[in-house]
Amino acid sequence: MTDLSTVLARADSNLSSSLERLFDLVRIPSISTDPAYKAECRRAAEWLVAALTELGFDASVRDTPGHPMVVAHHAAGRADAPHVLFYGHYDVQPVDPLELWESDPFDPKIKDLGNGRKVVTGRGTSDDKGQLLTFVEACRAYKEVHGALPVTITILFEGEEESGSPSLKPFLEANRDELKAEYALVCDTSMWDGETPAIAATLRGLVGEELTITAADRDLHSGLFGGAAANPIHILAEILAGLRDETGRVTLDGFYDGVEETPENIKASWATLGRDATSFLGEVGLSEPSGEKGRSVLELTWARPTCEVNGIWGGYTGEGFKTVIAAKASAKVSFRLVGTQDPASIRESFRAYVRSKLPADCRVDFHEHGASPAIQLAFDSPVLTKAKSALSEEWPKPAVVVGMGGSIPIVGDFQTYLGMDSLLVGYGLIDDRIHSPNEKYDLTSFHKGIRSWIRILDAL
Amino acid sequence: MTDLSTVLARADSNLSSSLERLFDLVRIPSISTDPAYKAECRRAAEWLVAALTELGFDASVRDTPGHPMVVAHHAAGRADAPHVLFYGHYDVQPVDPLELWESDPFDPKIKDLGNGRKVVTGRGTSDDKGQLLTFVEACRAYKEVHGALPVTITILFEGEEESGSPSLKPFLEANRDELKAEYALVCDTSMWDGETPAIAATLRGLVGEELTITAADRDLHSGLFGGAAANPIHILAEILAGLRDETGRVTLDGFYDGVEETPENIKASWATLGRDATSFLGEVGLSEPSGEKGRSVLELTWARPTCEVNGIWGGYTGEGFKTVIAAKASAKVSFRLVGTQDPASIRESFRAYVRSKLPADCRVDFHEHGASPAIQLAFDSPVLTKAKSALSEEWPKPAVVVGMGGSIPIVGDFQTYLGMDSLLVGYGLIDDRIHSPNEKYDLTSFHKGIRSWIRILDAL
Repeated sequence: MTDLSTVLARADSNLSSSLERLFDLVRIPSISTDPAYKAECRRAAEWLVAALTELGFDASVRDTPGHPMVVAHHAAGRADAPHVLFYGHYDVQPVDPLELWESDPFDPKIKDLGNGRKVVTGRGTSDDKGQLLTFVEACRAYKEVHGALPVTITILFEGEEESGSPSLKPFLEANRDELKAEYALVCDTSMWDGETPAIAATLRGLVGEELTITAADRDLHSGLFGGAAANPIHILAEILAGLRDETGRVTLDGFYDGVEETPENIKASWATLGRDATSFLGEVGLSEPSGEKGRSVLELTWARPTCEVNGIWGGYTGEGFKTVIAAKASAKVSFRLVGTQDPASIRESFRAYVRSKLPADCRVDFHEHGASPAIQLAFDSPVLTKAKSALSEEWPKPAVVVGMGGSIPIVGDFQTYLGMDSLLVGYGLIDDRIHSPNEKYDLTSFHKGIRSWIRILDAL
Repeated sequence: MTDLSTVLARADSNLSSSLERLFDLVRIPSISTDPAYKAECRRAAEWLVAALTELGFDASVRDTPGHPMVVAHHAAGRADAPHVLFYGHYDVQPVDPLELWESDPFDPKIKDLGNGRKVVTGRGTSDDKGQLLTFVEACRAYKEVHGALPVTITILFEGEEESGSPSLKPFLEANRDELKAEYALVCDTSMWDGETPAIAATLRGLVGEELTITAADRDLHSGLFGGAAANPIHILAEILAGLRDETGRVTLDGFYDGVEETPENIKASWATLGRDATSFLGEVGLSEPSGEKGRSVLELTWARPTCEVNGIWGGYTGEGFKTVIAAKASAKVSFRLVGTQDPASIRESFRAYVRSKLPADCRVDFHEHGASPAIQLAFDSPVLTKAKSALSEEWPKPAVVVGMGGSIPIVGDFQTYLGMDSLLVGYGLIDDRIHSPNEKYDLTSFHKGIRSWIRILDAL
């Protein structure tokens, strides 16, 4: 028996006690958004500190203006081992409407779905108590077998993830040196499907802009002025229409600087996932991919930058008709970024483009709505490669490296405050009903999740 | 002394009694929109019937569900004389805020402006009691000198023009045979300036459309779907931007069918009016003509068709930012028509164009917002030519044939219900403050207005 298989066997034999610990943690109703559960949140933090201390971590409850953080440290057995930060959150969503729950959300049960699947029911079983415990229990099995951990680990458990994380940024900033590691492991995402583990390696960035075009100094009668006076809605429509060319590419100068083609092997693995335009767009009543031509919907949403108009308004928008030429027209526009696209340059290029299309007697005002760069683990980075192999060993199908079209704040915060990439691995399933009544976590997710972390820690 | 100069001299010598009659009519507070003045409206109608009867008209007060109409008939002295319908309105706007009036709005006075201009003050002096009486007093002078009128005249005075004319269409329809004439003379417009009379010969028509583009069956998260799912705002922006080409011409198939070039002599006369892009657009904070290139602002607003977006909305339009791809986006679009452009064909062409630009998996819904053809007296029609010469004889500067960018409902109604063109001649000035406190009518407008009608009647 190899070292690794010994640890995995230990995780298997630990499973029922691991589940008991999960039940214990789920029984604490740590609803962060409801002040009535403030003490319960602290109790969950204390429970975690106790569990980590028992494993040999130097763990403590750390106060914030809101719910406390849990921070824990454990050095690796070898001095040259890497150092990772593991992140999860112990707070949960409210449970209303309570009458829709088939059993008490804070009295977890094992339920046999009858199709070979057993699940643990209860609020937080999947999001995120079950998930974070997969990592803790992996550490436990490792420690029990080897008396040491293969990597140096800092743990950060947050208690405000479900209520907007108000304390997170200040806490990261104030504890930068203590929390800094080589990279973060985040366990708050899903598998691709029940047999295929997923690592989210790319998160698109965002530039938000609002623009208002002003033409005349007042609303005009379209009979008296129509045909002679500039109409800001026309100007805006032309500007917006000109943002993409007939192939769907964004036309801004320098927009694709920093955008790299997705490696062929990654695209090939995405092609095996069965999510094509028909299945992806069919769910929302569409069938034809928009945007850049000749690319799959997964590539378009995970690996390509976009320009989208998120809102537009101007002139008369009520019932009936008014023959007005408006003085102003406005739009909100966002750009999703990938690779190393620079948000500031893109904002500048957008504004220069708008000004270049503006008649000399009209005006434009811009309003900034945030900017964040894309986050992208290099597809060939060692940590990604190792984690992918480790996961592929554990599950029936090989792990897939996926992208996420939107941003996950914690990943950006780790990047911003700690200068650290994140590896997002999670064992949730699409049907876990997180945030809804009857949340559950598959026993397989929990068990093979623990085994997966053991393999990943071993590989790192 | 010619026949004409005798009649003009009679109008001059009648002037003080003509003014007394104007004062009498202005003293009747015939505010049509306020039910408290219902009896006063009837009194004004009766006053007019008495005045016309005195001149030999067969005149009567005609009841409607609202305020009464005045209808009067007088045959010409010669059997082969043309037959015209003269239109005016005896109702007036409310007078509030009363405290801003320098003198009682219903106690007219002659006021010397000190710059050689004398004016009659009071509500309705210009709009439209003073204007309609120029015609009645012209008839009086003619009748007094010749014992007969040079043309057969039907008069229609309305009492609901300032309150939406609810009874007008049914009245025209019910009395079609009685009211039908060769053409209408309408006295409710302005001079070009104090020295230059104007005849409005063209009124643009209108087609109003509302369209809603629907893409997905719900609002989508722009992170998850951006780049792959159709965005109805983009589609709408492209459709609207494509409605005009780079020369400002409307791109719809067949749009310019029925549009004729304005005769060079008319364009030349417009060029002398001093209303260029700088003066016209400068008043509203603009300087560059929009729309078709290479045409003057007067041509653009009087003699060319347009496409204007009057309103647009879609997606998130509130404070801040929401990364949404909207399910729907809408716009209100209008086309101003000239010549013989057909509203129904243009609506159809617009809809076909929109459908041709629509992705196969998206939908468009149209909502109709009215249609009216343009009204255009042929620039070389005899009545226009005669009226123009007659006016040019009377005033310091030659009469100018102008267009009106918007529609005047009465003109369309005469066209629709009586199949009759209208000649719009009026002696109001831009500074008459109609609808506002301290409305006035220049003594010159009244006096030379009477003389102008004498000349026009004589010429016809």
